Amino acid sequence: MSVPALEQRPAAVLIDLAGVLHVGDAAVPGAVDALARLRQAGLRLRFLTNTTRSPRARIARMLTGLGFEVRGDEIQTAAAAARQVVDARGLAPFYLVHPDLAAEMGPGAEHPDAVVMGDMGPHLTYAHLNRAFRLLMDGAAFIAMARNRYFQEEDGLSLDMGAFVTGLEFSSGVGAEIVGKPAAGFFQAALDAVGVPAGEAVLIGDDLHDDVGAAQDCGIAGILVRTGKYRPEDEHDEEVRPARVVDDFAAAVAHLLALAAEPRP
Amino acid sequence: MSVPALEQRPAAVLIDLAGVLHVGDAAVPGAVDALARLRQAGLRLRFLTNTTRSPRARIARMLTGLGFEVRGDEIQTAAAAARQVVDARGLAPFYLVHPDLAAEMGPGAEHPDAVVMGDMGPHLTYAHLNRAFRLLMDGAAFIAMARNRYFQEEDGLSLDMGAFVTGLEFSSGVGAEIVGKPAAGFFQAALDAVGVPAGEAVLIGDDLHDDVGAAQDCGIAGILVRTGKYRPEDEHDEEVRPARVVDDFAAAVAHLLALAAEPRP
Repeated sequence: MSVPALEQRPAAVLIDLAGVLHVGDAAVPGAVDALARLRQAGLRLRFLTNTTRSPRARIARMLTGLGFEVRGDEIQTAAAAARQVVDARGLAPFYLVHPDLAAEMGPGAEHPDAVVMGDMGPHLTYAHLNRAFRLLMDGAAFIAMARNRYFQEEDGLSLDMGAFVTGLEFSSGVGAEIVGKPAAGFFQAALDAVGVPAGEAVLIGDDLHDDVGAAQDCGIAGILVRTGKYRPEDEHDEEVRPARVVDDFAAAVAHLLALAAEPRP
Repeated sequence: MSVPALEQRPAAVLIDLAGVLHVGDAAVPGAVDALARLRQAGLRLRFLTNTTRSPRARIARMLTGLGFEVRGDEIQTAAAAARQVVDARGLAPFYLVHPDLAAEMGPGAEHPDAVVMGDMGPHLTYAHLNRAFRLLMDGAAFIAMARNRYFQEEDGLSLDMGAFVTGLEFSSGVGAEIVGKPAAGFFQAALDAVGVPAGEAVLIGDDLHDDVGAAQDCGIAGILVRTGKYRPEDEHDEEVRPARVVDDFAAAVAHLLALAAEPRP
């Protein structure tokens, strides 16, 4: 893929949360002030997260508690995208989701025709997965919020739900439909929400493939930050070349605000 | 692959256990008598299992309890194969195995350089898998007893460890070395144990790919039984064509014993 150009100040910025604004319960240094500068400059903002262990309201409260100015309705979650798919298609779901997310998803069906999977974290059990496996073998649809490989916790990288999606696909032979990042529909929904075309938007993320690569596949320039799950080998990847790689969110913002608002002659 | 011929009575029979001789706690009808006939006819026998929830002694006791004449030292398990690899290479293992298998595997290492994985069944936890993931990311070797997709329980097909092997491979980027079926080394060890070349041996199994296909890749004719995890679509597979498909173990034995002991002129 060609790399979308990043030569003028974008009209909108799509911002990944975990690993970019915060790692675990700690704000990334400089990120609170940088987000405030971005708002002051009048850029439209949308926060994208594949985190599916927490409902949106709690994510917003956590960010506010760290000092970030973020409204709940600016946050776009993979869980909400899954809920929309369930509603739009009238699916009868069996939910494999974290207990904290259960209320946001609504009740599961008595006779499910779909497995809807999020990250259950430490609540994952073999019994849950085997129920899902048997439903898939009986013809249920497979909707997964994400296929992330791992995420950054304060004490190191941790296994993310992509392992379990891939494992269930392997055993059942049923492919999952991913509704969060890196699905093109998830990025398109973000562009629609801010009313900006792909060529005038930028994404800032710490996941080379599911943030940066996926955004660039949609024509959105991607900035990779060297925080969160970033690893040095990401800068030598054969498939994905970010429009820019910077040390952290504050550096990304400084770079964007230094760009001229109009194209150079 | 070409299908090994099955035109004369074999010198040795390799027999899969779960789904062939028994399903859960019940013997497959006719299998006890059929195994006795096979022994009377003087064929050499080796029992191969990827079941890694039970130690070998318990598998032998279970089979004896169902009426089968099977000695513990005739049973070749994926767990024992893993233990041999650990010992031969001097690995310091972190064991992801069922508690019942822990004694057979020996103690885990304080500073592991290898993840050795079996089927933990309902004992599987996210914490176990995340520990394994972090070790793999730090460079540990990945030894898996099996990569089976599913197995037959009395109330239906159940998710097997292949899902978790594949999932950990996906998230860590580290490929697993499989030591049980379908590894060629596992079948070769069985041939060595009975002292018979591949062309004079037959395998009887219920898993089209990991039993029949893998044996045939080693030049051993494979008989697929229509019990256990067998599914009708197995008879129309594009990759694996069994030397023979029969209703059950008794039918397989009847077929073998009806073959002339010497090649026809």
